[in-house]
Amino acid sequence: MTLETDGENNSQEQDNRPETSHNKNCLLSHPWKPCRRPHAIVKEWLLRLRLCLGTVCGMEWYGYAILGISTAILSFLMDLSVTKLLTAHQWLYMKLEGNILLQFFCWTLYPACLCCFASSFSHNICPFSTGSGIPEVRTMMAGIEMPHYLSLTNMFTKFLGLICTLAAGSTAFLGKVGPFVHLSTMLGAYLSKLCTLIQANKMEKADDEMLVVAAAVGVASCFGAPISGVLFSVEVMSSHFALRHYCPCFFSAACGALTFRLLSVWSGDGETLQALFKTNFPTAVPFYPFEVLLFAFLGLLCGAVSCCYLFCHRLILRFTKTNTVFIKMLTTEKGLYSGMVVFFLASLTFPYSAGQYMASKYTMKQLLTSLLDNGQWSSQFRNASLQVEPSLGWSSSGIPVYLSLAFFLLMKMWMLVLACTLPLPAGYFMPVFVYGAAIGRLLGEGVAYVSSTGGTSGQQWASINPGGYALAGAAAFSGAVTHTLSPVLLAVELTGQFSHAVPILLATLLANALARSGHHPSFYDAISISKRLPHLPSLRKANPRIPSTPLGQVLGVKSVQLQKAAGPVEVLHAVNSSTDTQIPVVESHESQVLLGFVLRPELLMFLRHCKAEGLEKHLDEVCCIHPTSVLLSPHNTVQEAVSILTLVGAQTLFVADRGRLLGLITWPEVVSVCMS
Amino acid sequence: MTLETDGENNSQEQDNRPETSHNKNCLLSHPWKPCRRPHAIVKEWLLRLRLCLGTVCGMEWYGYAILGISTAILSFLMDLSVTKLLTAHQWLYMKLEGNILLQFFCWTLYPACLCCFASSFSHNICPFSTGSGIPEVRTMMAGIEMPHYLSLTNMFTKFLGLICTLAAGSTAFLGKVGPFVHLSTMLGAYLSKLCTLIQANKMEKADDEMLVVAAAVGVASCFGAPISGVLFSVEVMSSHFALRHYCPCFFSAACGALTFRLLSVWSGDGETLQALFKTNFPTAVPFYPFEVLLFAFLGLLCGAVSCCYLFCHRLILRFTKTNTVFIKMLTTEKGLYSGMVVFFLASLTFPYSAGQYMASKYTMKQLLTSLLDNGQWSSQFRNASLQVEPSLGWSSSGIPVYLSLAFFLLMKMWMLVLACTLPLPAGYFMPVFVYGAAIGRLLGEGVAYVSSTGGTSGQQWASINPGGYALAGAAAFSGAVTHTLSPVLLAVELTGQFSHAVPILLATLLANALARSGHHPSFYDAISISKRLPHLPSLRKANPRIPSTPLGQVLGVKSVQLQKAAGPVEVLHAVNSSTDTQIPVVESHESQVLLGFVLRPELLMFLRHCKAEGLEKHLDEVCCIHPTSVLLSPHNTVQEAVSILTLVGAQTLFVADRGRLLGLITWPEVVSVCMS
Repeated sequence: MTLETDGENNSQEQDNRPETSHNKNCLLSHPWKPCRRPHAIVKEWLLRLRLCLGTVCGMEWYGYAILGISTAILSFLMDLSVTKLLTAHQWLYMKLEGNILLQFFCWTLYPACLCCFASSFSHNICPFSTGSGIPEVRTMMAGIEMPHYLSLTNMFTKFLGLICTLAAGSTAFLGKVGPFVHLSTMLGAYLSKLCTLIQANKMEKADDEMLVVAAAVGVASCFGAPISGVLFSVEVMSSHFALRHYCPCFFSAACGALTFRLLSVWSGDGETLQALFKTNFPTAVPFYPFEVLLFAFLGLLCGAVSCCYLFCHRLILRFTKTNTVFIKMLTTEKGLYSGMVVFFLASLTFPYSAGQYMASKYTMKQLLTSLLDNGQWSSQFRNASLQVEPSLGWSSSGIPVYLSLAFFLLMKMWMLVLACTLPLPAGYFMPVFVYGAAIGRLLGEGVAYVSSTGGTSGQQWASINPGGYALAGAAAFSGAVTHTLSPVLLAVELTGQFSHAVPILLATLLANALARSGHHPSFYDAISISKRLPHLPSLRKANPRIPSTPLGQVLGVKSVQLQKAAGPVEVLHAVNSSTDTQIPVVESHESQVLLGFVLRPELLMFLRHCKAEGLEKHLDEVCCIHPTSVLLSPHNTVQEAVSILTLVGAQTLFVADRGRLLGLITWPEVVSVCMS
Repeated sequence: MTLETDGENNSQEQDNRPETSHNKNCLLSHPWKPCRRPHAIVKEWLLRLRLCLGTVCGMEWYGYAILGISTAILSFLMDLSVTKLLTAHQWLYMKLEGNILLQFFCWTLYPACLCCFASSFSHNICPFSTGSGIPEVRTMMAGIEMPHYLSLTNMFTKFLGLICTLAAGSTAFLGKVGPFVHLSTMLGAYLSKLCTLIQANKMEKADDEMLVVAAAVGVASCFGAPISGVLFSVEVMSSHFALRHYCPCFFSAACGALTFRLLSVWSGDGETLQALFKTNFPTAVPFYPFEVLLFAFLGLLCGAVSCCYLFCHRLILRFTKTNTVFIKMLTTEKGLYSGMVVFFLASLTFPYSAGQYMASKYTMKQLLTSLLDNGQWSSQFRNASLQVEPSLGWSSSGIPVYLSLAFFLLMKMWMLVLACTLPLPAGYFMPVFVYGAAIGRLLGEGVAYVSSTGGTSGQQWASINPGGYALAGAAAFSGAVTHTLSPVLLAVELTGQFSHAVPILLATLLANALARSGHHPSFYDAISISKRLPHLPSLRKANPRIPSTPLGQVLGVKSVQLQKAAGPVEVLHAVNSSTDTQIPVVESHESQVLLGFVLRPELLMFLRHCKAEGLEKHLDEVCCIHPTSVLLSPHNTVQEAVSILTLVGAQTLFVADRGRLLGLITWPEVVSVCMS
């Protein structure tokens, strides 16, 4: 092998060689293994493969590529099964044409059963798999360990549960983004472990990096939208973004998006790589300069509606936490509750009841496609012969599309809020996006109607495109609900239309300004607060003064501490009275000069040691006193403390004044301070 | 006034009232002012205006809007004057048709004089205004104070100098982005001072925030591209991006881009808001799936060429720093040097000499437009009757466009490197972008030629669009040279084409991977290193091991320190032997327990006090010992120290071990450690 590698002698390889040969020796020298020869051959080949791969780039890049590709495959498989399930439902419903009662049961029981199954399945296999997952993922990314949320069981449960939820279609009106981010994070955590296994010596921070990348890939693979995927994850997940994650994120997201789009090309969905909701807006004059003002108004409108939506959402979150009947229902009969709620929603959307006024026959995808259509629905009505497909669902009952859209908006508002209480894996971004598109469409149709009937410059104004308003509304409303700006790029990437980028950005900015003006929490913040997750940016919304308070004011009772010369009795007391993993050691209780810390397991070992030998030893004679990392002063603010906790990647930081210990700051402590 | 405001009583206003009435009282109660009444009235109205504005949003948001709008106006004015100057040159050149000698002098002396003027003007008025400015701006944004670079004189000089540089056209082959970022930063610093003046009490960190926003606005207003502007500034400027800057950046960038585009609509450039280089790529099948591989190859090609370019650039930077003739020339005769170099370049691009083979009659804008054209130039040749405009400049001499493009690439490589040594305000991004477009075009034309002549599926392949390759090449090459990914979005925003986003992203990622693989500095890093700017991410390129070294190993000689009971003699010694602004105070020289620090001015006051009273006082009796902020331990790495310096916004941090002072870390110290 030495001969071979000498041939392709380059600098990177030379760096790798010492470690590789070391590993090789240690791997090949286990004498007790059965069938040693085949083992050795396989291992030699694997090592050679690793060496070859390693010469091109670091092992972690293969991990990123695999992460992107496998997430895209998962996403494609999910889309495929959901489409099949939805088609089956539609086929059954069509077959029962003529018998309204049977049709009703088919319409209502199919989604109700699916959601009931999703709910009880996820509850029984892994209760951590319900909900969106984004609040939990970002808490983990802030540095808090939550191992339950990254298990493979959780991934399996979430994947199956999400398929069922999505197959319930536009009745449940739930999306895919949030759980998919969670799914890809779980995949990322698993791959990161694999990567660490393969290249044993470096990569201490790989785990953290893989999580950041995985969150970006989740969104990117969900829609085949790499750029907005990365930006959305940056905005939602972190309060500080390290630029060294930028390239891995984009690389992995590009792999994911490319695979997702290639898969849909190969499955016969289109001739080439296209946007998911491809539109054909006119490019010559996409909009007139004066329309910028209308887009700004749309932004403000979406902002106002989002405030109303967020208020209702907070209200129902509080209701589910305080109402005893609800609590009992949600703890014991999750499946029954989900089934009942979806049955109720489905009976409303039944095409022969209220459903006929709200285009309930459309799936989520069809809803969005119809809303983004660039033709004017109102003009299609006047020359009925030209009536094209997209508006059909919206005027099936014969009422004007304006009323139909308004009714849709009115009903879906509370239906969506109700659907948010369902205990099953579900995303809440896509419904909001579609809702926003409906707001925009309503305004756009109104403007198109006014401009085509009134005014002298009728010819010029007639080319107003309501689809552009729908797109801007979608971005603005979803941006306002999540307090982010990246839906602008998502809207562009989903449709492939760049001509409207500036007005969409304007609308989203104004909607965000209005939504943030009241200092209310965003959608994900509200969930974080309701679940008491230790995520500072959302906790700040609950208690805005805390982050700028000096640490000295919030440090609670004196923490447990040991002096250098502590004996077994003092150590035993400390171990019993504290649950911290790092216990500070001071010179003496009088001087309080901080020397460092000892780890809890070492203290337990010290106690065992003393018991075994029956000796009265001092702490510093047996245990290693670790030096502290960064020391905070009582004048630093809580915000700074949290930033430094994240930056250094520590779970505990000590606070000292002039060398004397004052206390310590841990994640749980930060949460309890903020929630008090 | 109280009566009036009671009418519009809202919560935000109530918050504002105490401070406002306080300010009002203090402003109205100056008894010695002349014409007190008019003063008072004007002030009352201003305060009332401020109150009105304050109810909508914070004063800083008006600052951001004004920043965006004024930068866009500056950018528009600059474009306008450059166009006028270029037209004048073209007009003169055309008028002299028939007399080649006069034409030659017109062609060469016009840009030479302009550049000579730009160079000597900027050298004499403000020598800090030469070059791109991006390396200096990002050093300031990392927390280092460089007041010379933010003066209004500098802004004026840079503005005028840049107009002259740009008016030299494609001969000098220099761009606008870098200096414009610097310009908008200077404007931002000025506006930030105004903002602080208006709302006196809060906003300590506004200064910093305004700089970040201004950097984003610079790029956005330069091209009317808000999204990529923000992302480019994030990527180039910082190593950590705080998400609280996200909204201000996008808001200001959107204002800037909107103003820029509206101004060009109103000036009659187009009917509506459009992309700067609007293209008409076919939307039905923008590219075939197999072309993704060709885009990947293009990315690798661009990466390889960028390595070559960066190598030449580093070489010439070192040459200008070491060659004595050069140094003498550049210190004393800047104007002459610029004039000579540009004269030489212009004599080469003269349309009757080598210029005829490299489309030298085109301006930078026309070059880019012609390269991004979606028609195939090669097919235009075969049916000569259809020969359309864009390729005219490339085949004016009758040679095939391939040769013309290849000659352009070969010549411009060293001409561009030479132009980088010119001591005048100039940007280096746009030339690189155009160069990359030419690489892409060459490959695209080649692919189109091969596909249209050979192969059985000629019909299908004939629709290959070389413009897409040019766009991908531009993004990939400029991304590789600057080590960024945002040129992807810039390419999309400049042309309004989103259909090619995924292949462009792929090409740029691969080009970046190749360009970064050798751990060489990027274009801006090389300038930073050559100018010895204290910017860590680029210093890391010079010395890659430093950031992960523990502080304990790099702390130099013991810093000056004072003990608590220090007398005037010790203080005098400390003041004379140290230039730090913060001098640490310890309990005693034996114990070395760190108590805090005293400020230099306080020490000088202490000395004066002791001299005046003739007493032997102790330090702690007179001076206030300030408590330290975050304390570093010797086990923290240099990287962590720099991150915390940036995070806390401090200029000095102390390093202590077990309460005992070890040393201190300042920005200059970090630089000297990294450069050693």
